[in-house]
Amino acid sequence: MMFKFEVIKTDPNTAARLGRITTPHGVIDTPVFMPVGTRASVRAMTPEELVDLGAEIVLANAYHLYLRPGHKLVSVAGGLHKFMHWDRPILTDSGGYQIFSLSPIMRITPDGVEFRALIDGSKHFFTPELAIKVQEDLGADIIMSLDQCTPYPSDHQFVARAVALTSAWAKRCRAAHKREDQALFGIIQGGVYPDLRLRSLEDLLALDFPGYAFGGLSVGESAEEALSILAAVTPNIPPEKPRYLMGVGSVVDIICAIEQGVDMFDSVFPTRVARNGTALTSSGRVNIRNRRYERDMGPIDSRCSCYCCANYSRSYIRHLYMAGEILPLRLLSWHNLSFTIQAVGSARQAIERGDYRDWLDRFIADLEKTDGKGKLEV
Amino acid sequence: MMFKFEVIKTDPNTAARLGRITTPHGVIDTPVFMPVGTRASVRAMTPEELVDLGAEIVLANAYHLYLRPGHKLVSVAGGLHKFMHWDRPILTDSGGYQIFSLSPIMRITPDGVEFRALIDGSKHFFTPELAIKVQEDLGADIIMSLDQCTPYPSDHQFVARAVALTSAWAKRCRAAHKREDQALFGIIQGGVYPDLRLRSLEDLLALDFPGYAFGGLSVGESAEEALSILAAVTPNIPPEKPRYLMGVGSVVDIICAIEQGVDMFDSVFPTRVARNGTALTSSGRVNIRNRRYERDMGPIDSRCSCYCCANYSRSYIRHLYMAGEILPLRLLSWHNLSFTIQAVGSARQAIERGDYRDWLDRFIADLEKTDGKGKLEV
Repeated sequence: MMFKFEVIKTDPNTAARLGRITTPHGVIDTPVFMPVGTRASVRAMTPEELVDLGAEIVLANAYHLYLRPGHKLVSVAGGLHKFMHWDRPILTDSGGYQIFSLSPIMRITPDGVEFRALIDGSKHFFTPELAIKVQEDLGADIIMSLDQCTPYPSDHQFVARAVALTSAWAKRCRAAHKREDQALFGIIQGGVYPDLRLRSLEDLLALDFPGYAFGGLSVGESAEEALSILAAVTPNIPPEKPRYLMGVGSVVDIICAIEQGVDMFDSVFPTRVARNGTALTSSGRVNIRNRRYERDMGPIDSRCSCYCCANYSRSYIRHLYMAGEILPLRLLSWHNLSFTIQAVGSARQAIERGDYRDWLDRFIADLEKTDGKGKLEV
Repeated sequence: MMFKFEVIKTDPNTAARLGRITTPHGVIDTPVFMPVGTRASVRAMTPEELVDLGAEIVLANAYHLYLRPGHKLVSVAGGLHKFMHWDRPILTDSGGYQIFSLSPIMRITPDGVEFRALIDGSKHFFTPELAIKVQEDLGADIIMSLDQCTPYPSDHQFVARAVALTSAWAKRCRAAHKREDQALFGIIQGGVYPDLRLRSLEDLLALDFPGYAFGGLSVGESAEEALSILAAVTPNIPPEKPRYLMGVGSVVDIICAIEQGVDMFDSVFPTRVARNGTALTSSGRVNIRNRRYERDMGPIDSRCSCYCCANYSRSYIRHLYMAGEILPLRLLSWHNLSFTIQAVGSARQAIERGDYRDWLDRFIADLEKTDGKGKLEV
């Protein structure tokens, strides 16, 4: 098996841990933040720029690529790595989240789910086997089982049924998956109910996945609810398996989840807010549209050394943003990804030193000086 | 005077010539194509990328920067070079073209022109002195005098009056301009009337500008009309002065104008058509939206070695373009600028060899194999 995960060190006072994932396309240091390239492109960024700012793995989305341009086309192109000109590790999401959160659902059956595509209203039937086939054609290093993602709030009975279906589908995904150069992760559902989360995990552990993800968080529940789920569940995941919190991308949420022993994160958050004119900084969020930055000749974040902060002023970026230019979307995306990845890198260093909680408290105190307090957001 | 122009070689059979412009921010080989960064950013591109693809000088627009963010702000920022992170030569247009083509004109007086800004309807009064003040504050290496640009078609009498006003304003620009580290060029008007073009040139020659530009072309007249104007006028511009054809940017139009002895070009054409999904190639134009490219795993232009063509397929770029992503706008802009600048570089080599006409015929024959024939377009 070409996939490997090692825990290198665990923080003495928290559940935070330092690890290393090995894949056919290279090594990933954990905890890790994975930039999201939903349609096989991290919005506004080139692969070279992602390497420059420290990205070790990117995420792409099986649901979107199945619909457009189609997994078969990507396969003909030589797989996702070649298609998108990225030779480092890739993770693909199965499409469960997108089907259950974005699409008008037609019908859920034990066999699969019928839905209409948002882009053109076309009708599709997704099964666990198709989710695996799509992801095998795409060829990512890490792929995900098909799950039923429940919205927030949902009642206990509804979530319990979703957990049962997710477990049944996980078993079929495990059976359908053949490519030995890919690692298939299971997805834990169960909403904000600890008992259901633990039941979901138990079902998945019986299938012995090489990694376990938390799905169905960051869908509207409070940060406290999400963290309490992590606190209840992660101790029950065997320590030798990586833990992945799906869709969580603000730095505060990430570093609080790292404290609970989570290893992997992805989110469109840094690039999405960039396109809305928001810069994430070590002293809080900066809305570049604000008139106070009109004559501000300083960088976005004076403690950041990324390409954006080394070369451009807030004044210039604001001018371009207000004029509707493309470059500021690039610069803010670059900075926000860099900021997020650097924060996770600092978290790794804190675990290495063994003072994670002190580091975490200082980091959050700095952010809270201004308006930068994070919330669980996608 | 820090501005210098030398003719290095003239083609034996055409008026094409090889030259070199020296400015305070570096040297420019002519003939040269100047990418346009209207609002102090070449759309979708970073300065480093422009250097990588061979740009030696960029153009910015005094009209747009006067309105937003304001020339005083740019001056406070340390000038345009520092503001936009570009340390090579810059040319600013005076705003004449924009005022007369984009704005609802309120009133033209001998003193100046009153207009409403498109962005917010605000009222402004531009004079030759203000056009110079704005451009001195911006701090480009080459700046332009304020002209009255006439639309096509316009009758002889109307154009004659515009020539007279342009001459009077050129004289006032010359008198107002103080910065010795900037070269102020005169703009020849006269529409498609050779007698008026020659009269305009004669008026400007009396003011002894360091360079002469053709304004009011590429505004709807045919390529033949434009070329006949160039053929009639360029022989009367002293050979030691650079000749600049404003707003012309398709490769065929550029290389035909080079044959008439023109040295400098600018246009938004390569980047504008890129954003519309059009790639300029050595075998004609490629509309990437066309379904025929859906499974085309070849590069945009198999004879091009730019970053886009070295790393991405037509299929991938089409997929991203149809999905509304930002990266394809970057890649097509990169390629189109690279293609245009490389074509002008090939033109320079042909002049160096002394076989410009043969090269020109072969280049156009290649393009005409498909649908790539150029027209005078901005």
